Amino acid sequence: MSLKVYFDLMSQPARAVVLFCKVNKIPFTPKPIALRKYEQQSEEYKRINPFQKVPTIQDGDFKLTESVAILQYLAEKYNVPDHWYPKDLQARSKVREYMAWQHMNTRMHCATVFIHEVILPRATGTPPDEDELKQHVNTMHTTLTAMEDVFLKDTPYLCGDKISIADLLGICEVLQVTASGRNVTAGHPKLAAWIERVKADLSPHFNEVFVLLNRVRDKNMQEKAPPAKL
Amino acid sequence: MSLKVYFDLMSQPARAVVLFCKVNKIPFTPKPIALRKYEQQSEEYKRINPFQKVPTIQDGDFKLTESVAILQYLAEKYNVPDHWYPKDLQARSKVREYMAWQHMNTRMHCATVFIHEVILPRATGTPPDEDELKQHVNTMHTTLTAMEDVFLKDTPYLCGDKISIADLLGICEVLQVTASGRNVTAGHPKLAAWIERVKADLSPHFNEVFVLLNRVRDKNMQEKAPPAKL
Repeated sequence: MSLKVYFDLMSQPARAVVLFCKVNKIPFTPKPIALRKYEQQSEEYKRINPFQKVPTIQDGDFKLTESVAILQYLAEKYNVPDHWYPKDLQARSKVREYMAWQHMNTRMHCATVFIHEVILPRATGTPPDEDELKQHVNTMHTTLTAMEDVFLKDTPYLCGDKISIADLLGICEVLQVTASGRNVTAGHPKLAAWIERVKADLSPHFNEVFVLLNRVRDKNMQEKAPPAKL
Repeated sequence: MSLKVYFDLMSQPARAVVLFCKVNKIPFTPKPIALRKYEQQSEEYKRINPFQKVPTIQDGDFKLTESVAILQYLAEKYNVPDHWYPKDLQARSKVREYMAWQHMNTRMHCATVFIHEVILPRATGTPPDEDELKQHVNTMHTTLTAMEDVFLKDTPYLCGDKISIADLLGICEVLQVTASGRNVTAGHPKLAAWIERVKADLSPHFNEVFVLLNRVRDKNMQEKAPPAKL
């Protein structure tokens, strides 16, 4: 099998790429790279991806990094159903518009909350600075409101009437925040409905790919829960 | 003329879009939006671009934001020479890889230096915090080194043997930093050679589109220069 996918299921964009392959039955050789063991920093992996991040794909001799570029490559190469990455120029441009927008918005602001609420406390052994975290959470909610008011304003999916690679990237970023046990859709009914819609479209593969994140979430929720009455 | 381009020549991605149209002789109605007068914040412009940023294009009834999506739309719609956005899937994917990478790298880190060195001092009337600025400058140089070591490693342009829309976005971001009078290519000979190469390919339109930025640069260099001997 010539397509190799390097991933870690804890990485948002890596989940999007793995989900895309599974849902579209694109055969690939899984190449797990454990971020918690710093496997991405090995010299061997640096030759695959000089930025030492996941995901990366290798198709024969051709290597490609950056989930946004990878998803478009796979959609075009494997001729998946048109709604994923439409051939119509205007519809396709709308998918690319969200994918360009999300880097400095959904991706950056959701990841920042995740890092401050999950990664840094584990790494340093100290709880997050509450004021700083609150600021990051507020910024994230501004972005989530923009997703509702602009991209989901008139359509059930981020870029139209059907699911596209934009929704795949979007749901993986938004749900990353739930790893702390946080209810990310609080105050965002439109976003909550969109998440359920996308999840349904991605089942049964959704649960399979989110298994690791959901395990972290459940553990964090258990730790936060008040002790059971004796 | 149905294609309208909303822009300000002080905006990096807006310059890239205007340059692309001029170099490829794509006819458009210019719609200048003066950022210094906060024209992007008007209710009228909000109906064109809900994020109130430039550039935006409007082609008939179709509106599109995000320079990365706009450049691909124009390249495909106007059937420009193939090197700008290649039809070959692997070559095209490499252009998309840089365009996805640049958001959190070239774009973010060059803009951060520009904001701290040019925008904030003018807005607040106080010079930049030297330690903070130094940190931002160091991060930017790490990104510029990555451009040299990865994207320009084996090729004269960011994504191959010929100029593409990736180079256009790249040069507009990198040169934004020169607005303060800073020599952005110091220590980056490969990047300096690439800039000259891209400038040559974009002449005579390059100077025309960079006129405003170069005016700010010249003014800042004059202010910084030691007083002439009497």
